[in-house]
Amino acid sequence: MIPVISVVGKSGSGKTTLLEKLIPEIKKRGYKVATIKHDAHRFEMDKPGKDTYRHFHAGADAIMISSREKMAMIARTYGEEMALDDLVKKLPPVDIVLTEGYKSGDKPKIEVHRKELNRGLLCTADELICVATDEPLDIDAPCIDINDAVSIVDLIEEKFLKKGEAS
Amino acid sequence: MIPVISVVGKSGSGKTTLLEKLIPEIKKRGYKVATIKHDAHRFEMDKPGKDTYRHFHAGADAIMISSREKMAMIARTYGEEMALDDLVKKLPPVDIVLTEGYKSGDKPKIEVHRKELNRGLLCTADELICVATDEPLDIDAPCIDINDAVSIVDLIEEKFLKKGEAS
Repeated sequence: MIPVISVVGKSGSGKTTLLEKLIPEIKKRGYKVATIKHDAHRFEMDKPGKDTYRHFHAGADAIMISSREKMAMIARTYGEEMALDDLVKKLPPVDIVLTEGYKSGDKPKIEVHRKELNRGLLCTADELICVATDEPLDIDAPCIDINDAVSIVDLIEEKFLKKGEAS
Repeated sequence: MIPVISVVGKSGSGKTTLLEKLIPEIKKRGYKVATIKHDAHRFEMDKPGKDTYRHFHAGADAIMISSREKMAMIARTYGEEMALDDLVKKLPPVDIVLTEGYKSGDKPKIEVHRKELNRGLLCTADELICVATDEPLDIDAPCIDINDAVSIVDLIEEKFLKKGEAS
């Protein structure tokens, strides 16, 4: 089973910014990492006018594009969101998956907290690997500085990845 | 095995335009259809500034986004293009796959031909299901008008899909 960790937090707390720091730190240690973002709205991934956009908007149930550098796929799900575990199964082989969002999911979580965004956390201490925070908090979970990606990845590595097993 | 048909043709022959006509005609008959585009260049699927774009450019090996409407994935392939059959395996269940490009692949082909783009075809008659053409051609394969999606899908359905087996 690939470890899956959810980075959660209130809107504007800086989830993407934290992920932008965690990803290169995880990569630097030799692991492969994928991310999965939960989108509550209607994301538009492709660009109007592109061939794949035209295929999709002509009604294709799924489109793919493939080059030497990468492959991309968009698939309709017809009003039913795919379960996180089913999404993970569609990923290429990686050592760890970080999600942005999925706060109501059952995966261990890192909550991003900023003091300017009201008090209180979304998660209870037992759900949390740690809180990435810009203020000290009275909670029974490790509190790590919001900019300290190294210490957060130390914790992730210790709990979910074993050195020397990177692919 | 899901049938895979490659729509090929010289640059500017109108491959995407033909696919935009075939896809709704196939859908109208109750089949699920996916497309796969071969990209010889470096496609950019996502948009700068989007969270998923930021994850990918921070170094993620793969990114995904999921909503109720659809899911999307981009995965690095590190200079090695994925084989068409392996791409097909990553698709959700569909009744037929149409590729745009893959002219050197081993799938049965529909060649799009326009008289204004020099003489001659890319494919030999034995590779062809039909030619979608705007002029009569002296070739031992069915020649169908380039705008006649109904007749082309009749041929596809007859050869590759059985009525009543649509998902």
